Amino acid sequence: MRVLMVALISLILASCGNKSADTDTDIKPDTQKTYSWKLVTTWPKNYPGLGSAPENFAKKIAAMSGGRIKIKVFGAGQLVPAFEVFDAVSQGTAQVGHGAAYYWTGKAKAAGFFTSVPFGLNAQEMNGWLHYGGGLELWRELYSPFNLIPFAGGSTGVQMAGWFNREINSMEDIKGLKMRIPGLGGDVITRAGGVSVTMPGGELYTSMQTGVIDATEWVGPYNDLAFGFHQVAKYYYYPGWHEPGPILEFIVNKEAYASLPSDLQAIVESAARAVNQDMLDEYTARNNSALVELVETHGVDVRKLPDDVLTELRRLSAEVLDELGQDSEISGRIAQSVMEFKKQAMEYHAISEEAYYKVR
Amino acid sequence: MRVLMVALISLILASCGNKSADTDTDIKPDTQKTYSWKLVTTWPKNYPGLGSAPENFAKKIAAMSGGRIKIKVFGAGQLVPAFEVFDAVSQGTAQVGHGAAYYWTGKAKAAGFFTSVPFGLNAQEMNGWLHYGGGLELWRELYSPFNLIPFAGGSTGVQMAGWFNREINSMEDIKGLKMRIPGLGGDVITRAGGVSVTMPGGELYTSMQTGVIDATEWVGPYNDLAFGFHQVAKYYYYPGWHEPGPILEFIVNKEAYASLPSDLQAIVESAARAVNQDMLDEYTARNNSALVELVETHGVDVRKLPDDVLTELRRLSAEVLDELGQDSEISGRIAQSVMEFKKQAMEYHAISEEAYYKVR
Repeated sequence: MRVLMVALISLILASCGNKSADTDTDIKPDTQKTYSWKLVTTWPKNYPGLGSAPENFAKKIAAMSGGRIKIKVFGAGQLVPAFEVFDAVSQGTAQVGHGAAYYWTGKAKAAGFFTSVPFGLNAQEMNGWLHYGGGLELWRELYSPFNLIPFAGGSTGVQMAGWFNREINSMEDIKGLKMRIPGLGGDVITRAGGVSVTMPGGELYTSMQTGVIDATEWVGPYNDLAFGFHQVAKYYYYPGWHEPGPILEFIVNKEAYASLPSDLQAIVESAARAVNQDMLDEYTARNNSALVELVETHGVDVRKLPDDVLTELRRLSAEVLDELGQDSEISGRIAQSVMEFKKQAMEYHAISEEAYYKVR
Repeated sequence: MRVLMVALISLILASCGNKSADTDTDIKPDTQKTYSWKLVTTWPKNYPGLGSAPENFAKKIAAMSGGRIKIKVFGAGQLVPAFEVFDAVSQGTAQVGHGAAYYWTGKAKAAGFFTSVPFGLNAQEMNGWLHYGGGLELWRELYSPFNLIPFAGGSTGVQMAGWFNREINSMEDIKGLKMRIPGLGGDVITRAGGVSVTMPGGELYTSMQTGVIDATEWVGPYNDLAFGFHQVAKYYYYPGWHEPGPILEFIVNKEAYASLPSDLQAIVESAARAVNQDMLDEYTARNNSALVELVETHGVDVRKLPDDVLTELRRLSAEVLDELGQDSEISGRIAQSVMEFKKQAMEYHAISEEAYYKVR
């Protein structure tokens, strides 16, 4: 009887307790199982704004999951180089990546649509298109063959046109201009007779200083001030026609995501959404004070690109986007979706956001 | 012996099992404990946009917590009337509320600053101020004596100035105008010689139809189309000077929040943040197509308020805000914080968001 009682108690104990998988699977699968993920980024570790988003993502997920998902964040080059993030997550070397879709146009040309296109949507509109205009579904379709699930992962807001050591008074001044400007914006500058150059952020200061390049775009006052471009450039031009609403991305390896129980999947999704807004909030607050410092402390010469230059850049941008839309069947569908959204958004924002900016 | 064994087994069962608090506190407190919360709102159940935010909040929390927090959403009047949401959550009748801070100016006058003020910040700027400009800390300080923790809970974007049955060509046309416009916007209209009226949304259509009021503001195309105001009003004026960036709120009862383990607290916080962006995304997408329908299908006469009227409304708004800032010590600090943020945001947005809208 004593033996029976001990056996019975053991049986009961085995079916409850903290570590018991049996108890868990009865009701909630995997509530004790933990996941160790690697997150690789295209930014230096802890780079202001851009690099703090993946850190916040990891922290939020750790807190919400009670430590069930631990994410270790690697800056560019720590686990894989910046431009191997896409492949690393696709192949499962890391479970998550943080970067920007337009870095992967070599893999899928239409990826360019999902960061920002010249004269395209601003950040608020990009988020509207992605989450309520069919954009995210198209993005996921595009990345599916690569074993990746994309999520919107933050925005810097409208960028600045960049730092110039040459005055831009007409399209003639773009001719021969050596400018660091990647992606579709770079294609537009090339088409305008300039020389678009791609180089890492860390080389820009010296390249401007030594005249290797005449101009560079980067982000906006908050990040630009930190790089000290005001020390090596004469003019700071606006507006950022080439990247009006850049949306960054979290990419998650499909199998890694599928392996999570549904509560952890929901946590990953909401963490991405929360960080997506948080980064824009941070830039919206910090760009302001950085601009004040650039102008009042450093006497930066802030200039608007001439209207006729912007008109011509807009015309060339439409050509570039038109060609991109003809690149493949899915490119065509993405181009159509985003252009229709833009047409309506422009009509409504002309009488709402834009009209309000003018009168306040 | 049999009795002892049963007692022993009962004791063991009582200390493990799904509902056991004892076992849980050993390692991860309360991982099996469930919480049933009530959420009361100031909107009708499932009202488009406004009313879907609390539903999304409840769904996200249920999914992320694996059902550990179950939130039942009550529309206005189902558990408490719309304008008793603040008291109900303060007193713990419900654990969460969803509404807008400017409904509670009778409790704390400075609450008006946390939704939207005439000629104030737009939605992107409000989010920047709240989350990176000290706004949220001030909001929490203001609500603390009421036993409440506020979270940003969505935005409609810039609203429309409203539906009018009187042409507005000068300030003379505001004189005697009976307009449904609550809050600080209403104070401005009163100061301009109009008659500001407060009435529930459900009465507006008939009041416009029968001439009880000459004008009403509501939200924007998406919600306005659903109410059918185009059938009873001649003119649809913009821009929404009175509510340029309304931020809604989730309010959580302090003790209810404190009773949650930290992972569930993190889940509540991120769910609010995700919904905060999600609602703006929804309005950004749906206002567009609703405007197209209003104009193209219903032939709505969309008009801009004259510049001199807007200039005078801006002057009166500054007076109203100045008085509000003098209402109490905390009002003064909030006014100073938001006005400083606005000054910088206007400078930066003039060369970024606003400049881009003009040239794209």
